[in-house]
Amino acid sequence: MSDAPVRGFPTSEFERRTDKAQRLMAEQGLDGLLLMSEPEVRYFSGFHTLFWQSPTRPWFLFVPAQGKPIALIPEIGAELMRQTWLDDIRTWAAPNPSDDGVSLLLDLLRPMAEQGATLGVMKGHETGLRMPLGDYERLVEGLPGVQVQDCTPLIRSLRMVKSGAEIEKIAHICGIASRSFARVPEIAFQGQPLAETFRAFRCEILAQGADDVPYLVGGADQGGYRDVISPPSTRPLQDGDVLMMDTGATFDGYFCDFDRNWSIGPADPASARAHETLWDATEAGLNAARPGATCRDLFAAMMSVIGDADGDVGRLGHGLGMQLTEWPSHAAWDDTVLEENMVLTLEPSLGYGDGKIMVHEENIVITDGAPRLLTTRAPRELPVI
Amino acid sequence: MSDAPVRGFPTSEFERRTDKAQRLMAEQGLDGLLLMSEPEVRYFSGFHTLFWQSPTRPWFLFVPAQGKPIALIPEIGAELMRQTWLDDIRTWAAPNPSDDGVSLLLDLLRPMAEQGATLGVMKGHETGLRMPLGDYERLVEGLPGVQVQDCTPLIRSLRMVKSGAEIEKIAHICGIASRSFARVPEIAFQGQPLAETFRAFRCEILAQGADDVPYLVGGADQGGYRDVISPPSTRPLQDGDVLMMDTGATFDGYFCDFDRNWSIGPADPASARAHETLWDATEAGLNAARPGATCRDLFAAMMSVIGDADGDVGRLGHGLGMQLTEWPSHAAWDDTVLEENMVLTLEPSLGYGDGKIMVHEENIVITDGAPRLLTTRAPRELPVI
Repeated sequence: MSDAPVRGFPTSEFERRTDKAQRLMAEQGLDGLLLMSEPEVRYFSGFHTLFWQSPTRPWFLFVPAQGKPIALIPEIGAELMRQTWLDDIRTWAAPNPSDDGVSLLLDLLRPMAEQGATLGVMKGHETGLRMPLGDYERLVEGLPGVQVQDCTPLIRSLRMVKSGAEIEKIAHICGIASRSFARVPEIAFQGQPLAETFRAFRCEILAQGADDVPYLVGGADQGGYRDVISPPSTRPLQDGDVLMMDTGATFDGYFCDFDRNWSIGPADPASARAHETLWDATEAGLNAARPGATCRDLFAAMMSVIGDADGDVGRLGHGLGMQLTEWPSHAAWDDTVLEENMVLTLEPSLGYGDGKIMVHEENIVITDGAPRLLTTRAPRELPVI
Repeated sequence: MSDAPVRGFPTSEFERRTDKAQRLMAEQGLDGLLLMSEPEVRYFSGFHTLFWQSPTRPWFLFVPAQGKPIALIPEIGAELMRQTWLDDIRTWAAPNPSDDGVSLLLDLLRPMAEQGATLGVMKGHETGLRMPLGDYERLVEGLPGVQVQDCTPLIRSLRMVKSGAEIEKIAHICGIASRSFARVPEIAFQGQPLAETFRAFRCEILAQGADDVPYLVGGADQGGYRDVISPPSTRPLQDGDVLMMDTGATFDGYFCDFDRNWSIGPADPASARAHETLWDATEAGLNAARPGATCRDLFAAMMSVIGDADGDVGRLGHGLGMQLTEWPSHAAWDDTVLEENMVLTLEPSLGYGDGKIMVHEENIVITDGAPRLLTTRAPRELPVI
């Protein structure tokens, strides 16, 4: 792992993120942002822990109009938060169902409420509320005068464009997963229960240097699979199966997200053709992925190759970073303009035969010319195991 | 893995869960439940996928006053949902930022609104809202007349008491992790970077039969560690370190959650004493864990051994199941009465020396007598590597 990027970020990265957020806040009339989801808390603080797996405790980060963000967190996280660039860290003995941070938030935000200030909260697409809804309602009731405004567009515009250090982390995990996928013909074999294929592949990704493999789905079935989000069955791999594995592995809190397909024994003609079509669609996506183009353009470029094959998974790719799937979406409804240093997946899919589906995915960075491929490009011909 | 429990559940298990929910709904005046978080959707449907890792799409399950639950989900999940016991599966082409299931929900719930019915939504402790807050607000505005009531207590009372099949899944993953912890003296060695210890341990758990290791935290430092939620550093293990690893691994969607401590080389006296104190506190917890006792009693029993050693992590254990941490909490504020077939962690911790902390954890099932240990009990004496 000696080629691994340095973990974490220099303080200057957090300063840049905060400065940029505060410039946008000023433009959009936001006097503060109240953030509570893992990626957002990490984005502005560097606070990085798997402890978010526990749903018990809420965590809050407040981004003021000026100055460093303020953390309002359970005491159990204080030691780790003190290692970040933040200075103002307020804690409570959580869990405390009668007051899980609400009093601390009221103390912090009451002056804003008295001034009729506008507070940004993420309420938009691809978000959730990571605190009890009842506590949120009590908080807003306790702040008469405060104007709550959706700050999803602001956060989205920040996070969609990655820094050089972020890109290198994503590139590193894409390289790890690419090398792991390359070893699948040595790992998978006829007669192996699919769950064991998954288990061996997960270990391979870890051995190649991934920190974790939070996402691994796929399928295998005669002449093609029908479902792209299942956990593996214990059915043994058979001659004539098409096998697909799709993984989101992580390095230092950044994801890859791509899949690969194989034929167990010689490929049936329909699956072989589907793979070539998806490869060609990806090529069209690569050719269209330039700054100034929109996600709709990318979608149209890929659809022009796929045609009207049924197999709708809602979009043909998306953003990638601290989350497995991020804004934007390559879909007819998304007119997001591509910018340099956006990290994206190209993920064309198509339906064929009797309810079969095939998906194919690569990860790229938008540059001022052709996109940089972060994944080792799949072969056009469906590989045979 | 031939001793592994059967995956999934028979339909009768989902029928029992739904019947019990509907009896409680009738008692509590709830005409329907709108659920949207992974464990709740899975609890009533059996729908099990890692696709929840993607925050992009909301998923909904409606539990009516009578009859089977109704799924309102993105089209990409339809094939998998059709394999469950549910009949009424309504889908939309997600993601669709302008209408991500809201119209489908309005169609379903409008008759309830017209009758002034009461809709249960989880708004309480240890929950979040897994849909965009803006969409939730639009939904409630679109249902004038509907009474929204927090149904967290209802869901909590159902999920806290496990079925035999659930307990066997948790027992299985606890056994896997116990065997993996037993192998740590062969895996970890002086000079090994802690991140590599973690990586090797993660692979060991998978090799022992876990499906996934969503949670692995810990630390290692001279004479004791100071933080229990960090990702691993690359600092090599040294003579005089106390090493701790805490894991939440899964089998078929059910978690274990426990840790183990080791001394690298002979233990320093303070750490050795801390380990014995925590073992004794766990013993006190085991002796107090009987049906009819409260979580407060369990907390008091463990605290009577620990004394007032500083090292507050908020509670001394919690429920365990489909989530790494579930209700209840072993804390002075939790008067939940223990019942047979609750699965719990006993997790005493204490502070010592200059800001050091030690945590110790076992997983148990409440029975009509002494609790059943699901984990292989740690030795009283801090083991040496």
